[in-house]
Amino acid sequence: MHPAVGRARNAVKAALEEACWPSRVLVACSGGPDSLALAAAVAHFARRGAVGGHPLEVGAVVVDHRLQEGSGEVARTTAAVLGELGLSPVRVVAVEVRSSGEGPEAAARSARLAALEAEAAAWGAGAVLLGHTLDDQAEQVLLGLARGSGTRSLGGMRAVRGLYVRPFLGLRRADTLDVCAAEGLEPWFDPTNADPRYMRSRVRAAIMPFLEAELGPGVAEGLARTAAILGHDADFLDAEAARAYAELVERPRERELLLPGEPVRALPAALRSRVLALAVVELGGQPTFERLAAVERLLERRGSAGPVEVPGHVTAHRQPRRKGAPRGTEYGKLVFVSHR
Amino acid sequence: MHPAVGRARNAVKAALEEACWPSRVLVACSGGPDSLALAAAVAHFARRGAVGGHPLEVGAVVVDHRLQEGSGEVARTTAAVLGELGLSPVRVVAVEVRSSGEGPEAAARSARLAALEAEAAAWGAGAVLLGHTLDDQAEQVLLGLARGSGTRSLGGMRAVRGLYVRPFLGLRRADTLDVCAAEGLEPWFDPTNADPRYMRSRVRAAIMPFLEAELGPGVAEGLARTAAILGHDADFLDAEAARAYAELVERPRERELLLPGEPVRALPAALRSRVLALAVVELGGQPTFERLAAVERLLERRGSAGPVEVPGHVTAHRQPRRKGAPRGTEYGKLVFVSHR
Repeated sequence: MHPAVGRARNAVKAALEEACWPSRVLVACSGGPDSLALAAAVAHFARRGAVGGHPLEVGAVVVDHRLQEGSGEVARTTAAVLGELGLSPVRVVAVEVRSSGEGPEAAARSARLAALEAEAAAWGAGAVLLGHTLDDQAEQVLLGLARGSGTRSLGGMRAVRGLYVRPFLGLRRADTLDVCAAEGLEPWFDPTNADPRYMRSRVRAAIMPFLEAELGPGVAEGLARTAAILGHDADFLDAEAARAYAELVERPRERELLLPGEPVRALPAALRSRVLALAVVELGGQPTFERLAAVERLLERRGSAGPVEVPGHVTAHRQPRRKGAPRGTEYGKLVFVSHR
Repeated sequence: MHPAVGRARNAVKAALEEACWPSRVLVACSGGPDSLALAAAVAHFARRGAVGGHPLEVGAVVVDHRLQEGSGEVARTTAAVLGELGLSPVRVVAVEVRSSGEGPEAAARSARLAALEAEAAAWGAGAVLLGHTLDDQAEQVLLGLARGSGTRSLGGMRAVRGLYVRPFLGLRRADTLDVCAAEGLEPWFDPTNADPRYMRSRVRAAIMPFLEAELGPGVAEGLARTAAILGHDADFLDAEAARAYAELVERPRERELLLPGEPVRALPAALRSRVLALAVVELGGQPTFERLAAVERLLERRGSAGPVEVPGHVTAHRQPRRKGAPRGTEYGKLVFVSHR
């Protein structure tokens, strides 16, 4: 057995254990090397009907995004291969990708995830397995960095999150090619992955190889390690911030939230900005780094009392101090309003 | 007045406010554009003897690392310029850079910081101002990423940390060139900044421009924004971890620490790894990501009980369960030992 095949199977087993051994799982497969290798690794356990002593049934879904000519043919061919591997049921689902404000990649992703969730619900699958590798993780972190993202975004993808399980986050893309070759599978290579009009393709084809050449090998592993650390940090920070927010927020009327100035100001900076962001998000706004910093400045004792405008038709301002309150002993509350 | 000069002076004022208005400050100046522009901006307030209504005296230190031919000449010329700007006292301090295991850049840095701290103590300065810019911050984050660093390292440099104040972390390197030109100052350009043998030089000369070209402008700002967010996160996470560690650690004898298995295992993942790292560090070890993960696996109910070796002559192992304790109800303690 090729060592990459063993690594892939071990990775699947470990991920299913982390997901608490779901007895029915769906593999999402595009026919590309990553997800085809994943299907092959899971099929090994499907043929035995068990993994790690736990019963296992494995189905597959091939999503046809209908964005390229011949996509239906690719999907049908892939489905046939998956059936031969022993997966059952294998479903081809054609989706309609609606162009929205979020860009074509994000729109395709939304349509794909909606289809996968519907299929999982219909068949009663406890998990949907996705083929993302360490390289995908590294590329995602790099893209987030370029945008100046925070901890949550740099935390990248998680091995287990809700319904989704990603067994291959510790494997390289090259490993998945080895698995396909060793299993005699011919993967499909999505031409958009080499299209330099897509940022993600440029990161994959040009930027990562350049960084590996200039900074030394191990950049992809380094980025993935960063993602692992920051993912845990984000979980903890988000949970602490949600707790603080729930304690502090007041909802006097519809489309309006209050946060008391003094306790918010006393929070550690990491929680303070997150608590302010939660208020903006609850009202349907999009808290950007720069606008959030402007909201935070309202907490200072001096300067403008606002209103500060935040994308998504949300404003924040500071209430004047209550009459008669001694200077410096009480901050006005922060008032968040939705003008939608 | 050139707008960059105004921005530089505002940045100095804001930083001195954040540092609680020290009345005596030292500028560390290499003669390069960043620190020369910083000296010029601070000198504006030195000539008035005040900033923001607070008294201010400004001295300067030029550290001569004696690593390049003619370094003494550069230092003396720079010192003369600083005197003309109105800074006093201006001191040239020659240091000896001892090559150690940490590499030449780190050795020069250690020697420089030691000299600055000695000068600050001798003159009674409350702050040492450093000329790092947004570009330096971005480069540092990128280097940290390539190493797969965690939150603290990616948090980069802070505007105020202990004695050190960095007023220019929000300014671009190009701004400092503008300031020098507007003030009629001729900066010295360190040839090692263009030497591709240094990783930092490659990041500056090749990697950042490539990323800006491929990912779009704003990469440097994005990286700096990431650093700002992660710096606050690291402060909070480190403080929470230190608190949890202080509550949990037992010190039965010299060179040995105990952490109780069950409470450590129950910690959020972000704190758990930090608490384990604190035990390693207290014993003089260097907790790497991979070794720390191995220590963390000792907390699982099964598998090896260790010992796990950690760089710096530290080991960790799991104590056997107390006799008669029901299975699964009690974890053995983790035992950290220094073998130095």
